[in-house]
Amino acid sequence: MATGSINVSVENIFPLIKKFLYSDHEIFLRELISNATDATTKLKHLTTIGEAKVEYGNPIIEVKIDKDAKTLTIKDQGIGMTGEEVEKYINQVAFSGAEEFLEKYKDSAKDAGIIGHFGLGFYSAFMVAEKVEILTKSYKEDSKAVRWVCDGSPEYTLEETDKSDRGTEIILHIADDSTEFLEEFRIRELLTKYNKFNQIPIKFGTKTETLPLPEGAAEDAKPETIEVDNIINNTNPAWTKSPSELKDEDYNNFYRELYPMQFEDPLFHIHLNVDYPFNLTGVLFFPKLGNNLNIEKDKIQLYQNQVFVTDEVKGIVPDFLMLLRGVIDSPDIPLNVSRSYLQADGAVKKISSYITKKVADKMVSLINDNREDYEKKWNDIKIVIEYGMISEDKFYEKSDKFALYPTTDGTYYLWNDLIEKIKPTQTDKDGKTVILYANNADEQHSYIESAKEKGYEVLLLDSPIVPHLIQKLEASKENVSFARVDADHINNLIKKDEPKISKLNDSDKETLKKQIEESINDQKFTVQLEDLDSTDAPFTLTQPEFFRRMKDMQATGGGGMFAMGGFPEMYNLVVNSNSDFAGELLKKDNADEKRVLINQALDLAKLSQNLLKGKELTDFIKRSFENLK
Amino acid sequence: MATGSINVSVENIFPLIKKFLYSDHEIFLRELISNATDATTKLKHLTTIGEAKVEYGNPIIEVKIDKDAKTLTIKDQGIGMTGEEVEKYINQVAFSGAEEFLEKYKDSAKDAGIIGHFGLGFYSAFMVAEKVEILTKSYKEDSKAVRWVCDGSPEYTLEETDKSDRGTEIILHIADDSTEFLEEFRIRELLTKYNKFNQIPIKFGTKTETLPLPEGAAEDAKPETIEVDNIINNTNPAWTKSPSELKDEDYNNFYRELYPMQFEDPLFHIHLNVDYPFNLTGVLFFPKLGNNLNIEKDKIQLYQNQVFVTDEVKGIVPDFLMLLRGVIDSPDIPLNVSRSYLQADGAVKKISSYITKKVADKMVSLINDNREDYEKKWNDIKIVIEYGMISEDKFYEKSDKFALYPTTDGTYYLWNDLIEKIKPTQTDKDGKTVILYANNADEQHSYIESAKEKGYEVLLLDSPIVPHLIQKLEASKENVSFARVDADHINNLIKKDEPKISKLNDSDKETLKKQIEESINDQKFTVQLEDLDSTDAPFTLTQPEFFRRMKDMQATGGGGMFAMGGFPEMYNLVVNSNSDFAGELLKKDNADEKRVLINQALDLAKLSQNLLKGKELTDFIKRSFENLK
Repeated sequence: MATGSINVSVENIFPLIKKFLYSDHEIFLRELISNATDATTKLKHLTTIGEAKVEYGNPIIEVKIDKDAKTLTIKDQGIGMTGEEVEKYINQVAFSGAEEFLEKYKDSAKDAGIIGHFGLGFYSAFMVAEKVEILTKSYKEDSKAVRWVCDGSPEYTLEETDKSDRGTEIILHIADDSTEFLEEFRIRELLTKYNKFNQIPIKFGTKTETLPLPEGAAEDAKPETIEVDNIINNTNPAWTKSPSELKDEDYNNFYRELYPMQFEDPLFHIHLNVDYPFNLTGVLFFPKLGNNLNIEKDKIQLYQNQVFVTDEVKGIVPDFLMLLRGVIDSPDIPLNVSRSYLQADGAVKKISSYITKKVADKMVSLINDNREDYEKKWNDIKIVIEYGMISEDKFYEKSDKFALYPTTDGTYYLWNDLIEKIKPTQTDKDGKTVILYANNADEQHSYIESAKEKGYEVLLLDSPIVPHLIQKLEASKENVSFARVDADHINNLIKKDEPKISKLNDSDKETLKKQIEESINDQKFTVQLEDLDSTDAPFTLTQPEFFRRMKDMQATGGGGMFAMGGFPEMYNLVVNSNSDFAGELLKKDNADEKRVLINQALDLAKLSQNLLKGKELTDFIKRSFENLK
Repeated sequence: MATGSINVSVENIFPLIKKFLYSDHEIFLRELISNATDATTKLKHLTTIGEAKVEYGNPIIEVKIDKDAKTLTIKDQGIGMTGEEVEKYINQVAFSGAEEFLEKYKDSAKDAGIIGHFGLGFYSAFMVAEKVEILTKSYKEDSKAVRWVCDGSPEYTLEETDKSDRGTEIILHIADDSTEFLEEFRIRELLTKYNKFNQIPIKFGTKTETLPLPEGAAEDAKPETIEVDNIINNTNPAWTKSPSELKDEDYNNFYRELYPMQFEDPLFHIHLNVDYPFNLTGVLFFPKLGNNLNIEKDKIQLYQNQVFVTDEVKGIVPDFLMLLRGVIDSPDIPLNVSRSYLQADGAVKKISSYITKKVADKMVSLINDNREDYEKKWNDIKIVIEYGMISEDKFYEKSDKFALYPTTDGTYYLWNDLIEKIKPTQTDKDGKTVILYANNADEQHSYIESAKEKGYEVLLLDSPIVPHLIQKLEASKENVSFARVDADHINNLIKKDEPKISKLNDSDKETLKKQIEESINDQKFTVQLEDLDSTDAPFTLTQPEFFRRMKDMQATGGGGMFAMGGFPEMYNLVVNSNSDFAGELLKKDNADEKRVLINQALDLAKLSQNLLKGKELTDFIKRSFENLK
């Protein structure tokens, strides 16, 4: 039996890096700036604990393009490396740092801000460079500067060099297929995308600044201008500060820093800040949403130690909060893993439920602090709240404290207040409290009016996910049911033990029903005679709650077992047998006239359900114009 | 100056593989079955050219689970390996095969069906296994079987072993975090997903088969049952055959093989087959689409040598064809590259334009072979064709031959036939041919009727992208413009040099206009008096073409410069000054009665534009019920 060790040929590692390490080549700049940032924060740490005996000062990172030399340079003023360290971190350790690299996110909470030294990230330089130079000088006393050069083959050279200042300079000799990274706009774009909030200031070029005139300067004195470093980042973004330091205006300014193309202020912000059992900071914003469930751009951005990672936060943030905007910064979120892994990860689950809880708490304090303002904004935030109530049980459990139920008249109730208000009037003879709602105040206007005439409240629930919300509320609340105002005649929606007066006897009713059925002759309409007030409409069309709701749920992707087949359109034609019209119909002898009257009345009933269309409507209008004369 | 070679420590390669090689661990099975398939097709090749002096036979690949031993085995009857070959391919070459692996797609056209031997793919086994065994015996004469074992550290053992049959057996000792791959349903799922059409039969378990009774068997004889190999794949799917071998039924059966949950037959199929300048086969299907632009599941599947790769074909197939279903099999499509790279790749561009051309050609032959059938299916395919016309110029250029323009009466015109038909009647006094269209025959019924009374054709263009298509047609065709039937009174949509008869004099008209404007008192409506036929409707509401079209385009994501702000709702109220109603209005002295009449007429005009809503509609219905009595 032979034993041996699998032999890996280094020549072939570099093509692998190019292809597999990151599918996106532009990542190299983020990686190199992260290394420069780490080298700088590490120096700060060492000077703080007294290990490094140098002045920390105000170090910056400089990014420079030299188009003629075809180089891109990233230069820091951090700890630097000695020749031995280059041997160790660049030449030797390299891939043996990989496991560390993979593990580091687990440990970084202990060591926040210093996310390791040269890991795999450095090698991403070879995705865009044909040759990489390192010039570096350590902070350590008497250390000599060194120059390392490698052309992407595993051969390198290492030699002493002249470099007077401390820190590391990475010079990328950009490859021919990557010349985009020699363009100023491209580098600016990358710095803005990934490093807008980097911990250490990043200089990219210079800009002109005008000095204020000295006091007492002559009136025609010209202000002096000077060239200053152009710093592209804000090293102290809002989420790194304490909420007590910030005013609403600061949050709004930060919102615009994040999303320069958003002109509207956000409605609310939620400041996230936790360091046990995981580390997470951030600010979430509620934008004005309306009923729009689909947002594509300006999503929540995920950062790690102030470096942009992604705006794909699915799996990290609960689905319903993906409608929000803002920043989450956490070193505890594993990267480069599959969605299914993410969803099973314990830390991610905790993060997700922490954020959910924070949002619920914020809603409670918002409504308590300024109910009027909250009500005004309800229409723009309700979709998030309602979606959360449907999808997250913990959120649902707290929602009685902040979920509003507006009426068509613009009164906003909390659940308990709503029930208290309507229980006396809207409880039916079986003891069930019936909540009436409309989803369109315009389209259901005549039905809403009928309900209001009875002294009932009608909610306006118009977001697309309301059918699901209603199902959930009916299942969890006791003795409550929902009915859309046009689901039946209002007398039937909330049945009371009241004596009914019939103007017609049963035999007349039977005759009338038959005549109407024959005249209409359409399976879609079920004729239903009711003893209503004589002033109520003679004909009304209603659509039974159950089927309509299933249809609505199907439309928004629910409905389960019913999802396979389409529902037929079914309506009840409620005929008011106490109306004068019904009495006159019965008396009329001429069958043709009777049919004309019945169909005209049916047309009017169809109009209020938005069902009179096409030729029927054209004929109706033509007839009506003729009658005008 | 020191020189050296970057040192890579192999211990640390395996964690990297686990994390980075594939984000999806399940891929390992596809990779191992691809290796087994390659080993088998390679043997076939060698026997064919006489280099291997063994019987090729009917080799299969067997996949076996042993739950007790916690192993998953993939066994082939291919070329096998000698001890030296294991040294070379598994121990030594390993990563030095990486570059080959990356390059292989470029060269595989030469060597189709044999996509290299053990590449990186083999190592994906370590994503799910804590230990991997290889038992292998080469086809070469007198070669001895060997057993290789490695536990994921770079240490391996290699020894001679007993194995009588030719081929390779890979035994994965599944790791504790991957026990899902010991479940039969999971492995069946993977085999179905990736290998449903594998070139070599794959056995997974056995099944019971009932033998037919021998002729003349006794009446009460029981049929015999036997256990047979359960082969999970079809090695000769439709796309690998020649179109001449296949009937419509065969294509439909293949469609159902691909999408078992689709119960409807596809409308058409397009067989793709090209081997120069790139290699591509496949079958595309037109499903019934209606007006739905969003399909999520059952997308086009991309294969390489009959192995499923992905159903994310964006960038490979032109956008408009992503609405189709089917299979594309090509070794020439680069994988694991970014979208932007894909879009710039020359081969991919050629593939995309080849597919576009094939679809256009197919449409031409379909319409020529059976116009009636094509017309019947038009409603379900138009969205693809129209989307293609908008987005692909080459497709647009050919579309006069196959794009249909249906009328509201169900006549389907090709462009040239349409123009020939309507030119004599629908050319206005300035020589422009006006194409009238509706987007909803029901809602625009009264306007359509008015146009038809003039002898005009009205197209029914109801897909959501029609506004964009119209813009394109107007820009490229000469002397043609489109107008929706409700954009103005029909006399104004196609203006003729006909003498007008005015029943009212100018001063009366001025008075009437003023009275109507005062009664209506709404900025939304611009009153416009017209000398129309006395039988035309007294009041009509129209919505000018330009603004309405911009609004429609905005709704489907176009509109360019107008996309920022919403358009106000603006209508023209066309008053027929020759109508009896207009005459009577003028004569009426009582101002109140006049106002009531005007507003009732406006209500009727609103009805035909679906604008009478809410309280206005409720009041209208109430009034009308009262008038019924």
